Amino acid sequence: MAIIVQKYGGTSVGDVERIKKVAERIKSYRDDGHQMVVVVSARSGVTNELIARAEAITPLPSEREMDQLLAVGEQETIALTAIALQAIGVPAISYTGAQAGILTDKAHTKARIHSIDATRLKTDLNAGNVIILAGFQGISPEGQTTTLGRGGSDLSAIAIASAIKADKCEIYTDVDGVYTADPRIVKTARKIEEISYDEMLELASAGSKVMQNRSVEFAKKYDVVFEVRSSFNYNPGTIVKEEVASMEKVVVRGVAVDKNQSKVVITNLADKPGSAAKVFRALADAHIVVDMIVQNAGSNGVANLTFTAPANEVSKATRALEPVLKELGGSISSQDQVAKLSVVGVGMKTHSGVAATLFQSLADSGVNIDLISTSEIKITVSIAQAKADEAARAVHTAFGLDKA
Amino acid sequence: MAIIVQKYGGTSVGDVERIKKVAERIKSYRDDGHQMVVVVSARSGVTNELIARAEAITPLPSEREMDQLLAVGEQETIALTAIALQAIGVPAISYTGAQAGILTDKAHTKARIHSIDATRLKTDLNAGNVIILAGFQGISPEGQTTTLGRGGSDLSAIAIASAIKADKCEIYTDVDGVYTADPRIVKTARKIEEISYDEMLELASAGSKVMQNRSVEFAKKYDVVFEVRSSFNYNPGTIVKEEVASMEKVVVRGVAVDKNQSKVVITNLADKPGSAAKVFRALADAHIVVDMIVQNAGSNGVANLTFTAPANEVSKATRALEPVLKELGGSISSQDQVAKLSVVGVGMKTHSGVAATLFQSLADSGVNIDLISTSEIKITVSIAQAKADEAARAVHTAFGLDKA
Repeated sequence: MAIIVQKYGGTSVGDVERIKKVAERIKSYRDDGHQMVVVVSARSGVTNELIARAEAITPLPSEREMDQLLAVGEQETIALTAIALQAIGVPAISYTGAQAGILTDKAHTKARIHSIDATRLKTDLNAGNVIILAGFQGISPEGQTTTLGRGGSDLSAIAIASAIKADKCEIYTDVDGVYTADPRIVKTARKIEEISYDEMLELASAGSKVMQNRSVEFAKKYDVVFEVRSSFNYNPGTIVKEEVASMEKVVVRGVAVDKNQSKVVITNLADKPGSAAKVFRALADAHIVVDMIVQNAGSNGVANLTFTAPANEVSKATRALEPVLKELGGSISSQDQVAKLSVVGVGMKTHSGVAATLFQSLADSGVNIDLISTSEIKITVSIAQAKADEAARAVHTAFGLDKA
Repeated sequence: MAIIVQKYGGTSVGDVERIKKVAERIKSYRDDGHQMVVVVSARSGVTNELIARAEAITPLPSEREMDQLLAVGEQETIALTAIALQAIGVPAISYTGAQAGILTDKAHTKARIHSIDATRLKTDLNAGNVIILAGFQGISPEGQTTTLGRGGSDLSAIAIASAIKADKCEIYTDVDGVYTADPRIVKTARKIEEISYDEMLELASAGSKVMQNRSVEFAKKYDVVFEVRSSFNYNPGTIVKEEVASMEKVVVRGVAVDKNQSKVVITNLADKPGSAAKVFRALADAHIVVDMIVQNAGSNGVANLTFTAPANEVSKATRALEPVLKELGGSISSQDQVAKLSVVGVGMKTHSGVAATLFQSLADSGVNIDLISTSEIKITVSIAQAKADEAARAVHTAFGLDKA
């Protein structure tokens, strides 16, 4: 007898047949005596269709009207899901974001949840109804429809779980959970049973994206334990929660590879205070996400600055840096076919030798290391893209992550 | 400088190109200095698609969830229409029924408008915005999404026109207005410039359906003058308003024909108080709309009762009457291929001889009259379906309705 929040993504509710399957799954939980609040996304493809219609009118539709438009996708799914539950004898009531009292700020298309008044939802829940809640949307203090941006439905689920003090929060996706490595590359990869918020965040930023970071950060902030699992089977998934002492026994939780990187090198940059700031301000203004940064102070008053960025953003980065280099001197060059390989684990905080093990296993595989960067629970190296898969397998074995 | 409410139906906003055309039309009015409130329907076909999806889950989806589902159609159109206006430089804001404060009762799928709190809408309107309002939908006192049933968008337009005391209300459809007869049958039919609410209602119930009667009744009750016109050209349409003295100069406003009728005859029904009531209660319970009713009291304590009904409802009517006839005696027979022909005009109240002229013109055309029924401003006869077109032309000419 628990209060359970479940979230189903666009693929899980992609058509009427899948919606019926989701309804059966919800029913099986309710038959076990649980109170259910279910967050659903728009059917996969619907949001893109709506965007395409708006962009057929004008390339830059207003954000207020885009929110009014996009909220339609989830509103359709909640009604169909509630109907599917009623059809198999389960009382269900659908809620739009506004009806559920999900109050946001007024930043259209990327609103932040401010508070949730779940009074009415709780009343309907306690009366024995399954609540079907539209993900991704809310209402501003002025009564406008708002949407939460990418990953918004996960955020809705975690926020409502926090608001109603749910006992469990399950995020259903098309993967079985979080793995020690990408199973398509590393055949011996295992599903991780439990992972800390910080490890999940670091794995995501290292290229293993199961969820948007903002949802994980929100869960961490409000201490919402959640499980990532598949809607296509009944296998247990991965539980994401606050770090506990036992987690530190595992030195490395997982290995992540991002093969879609390029390296940008600026040579002979004027070596004076503010140079680096100007470079990265220009990149930030162009909305380019820069990851590894290495600077070698040179002689003769010049320095070399290197960073990695997604491969498809390098030309944009080069353009953005032109005026800066005109001012500071220096020349720019880039190299594609670069991969990032990261090992992540809260155990690193208390175990030494992780870097040594990593570097040794790469050396044993004949993989040359280019850049190195570290955080408290992550070590990342950049290597040649062609060697990335082989390196991931070697590192996975070296840290004892292979299946028993 | 007037406040104008316009309503565009599903065909007028059927795709992105048509929505852009509607935006251009709205702009032309605004450029003339008018304040514009525009009610739009769902794109044609969308509502049926949504219903089909729900019915693929269950044949009887709950009405509460159907309202949540169907409201999606108009919500998409309002956003796209607002975006199309903004794209041509016109400030526009979309409103769902709930956002516009259209408060209804809680009779899902057929809600009645209770009141409209247009405060916020008026503020946005006075600030120079075009308001795009979702037709067909409202909000119940409990905050539920409601829809108004068939013809609901017309009703939304007339209700908002009343609430904001609009100077004009234009209902755009795919016809040019109300005609003296169906132009496909009577080539000499003319567009009617002005018509009274009562004439419009009688023409509709006689088979010339341009709008649902409830919208016309609402307009009559709240004295909202409106114009029915085409969104595909700039021709003036037909103005519908309260009867004025000059209207009575025209004895017959129009001729309507409904060719899709059947006649049902019950013979040897027990002639005692309550017999007819039982017959028509059984028909009403089966939701069969009965029109002309004629009873001849016979001898020997039995009577004959005749009525007309839509042809496709005769077998349902026969089934519904079986238990009644078992109780009261009598036998039932039906005749299809029946047409109703009606002449309508407020002038009838003050002119005599309308019936004589009607019957004479039918006699001259060799058309036999079966049943006759009359109201204060309408005379209806039932005739053979095969003679209906010819009869309509003869009667149209006899009452001087042909084009000059």
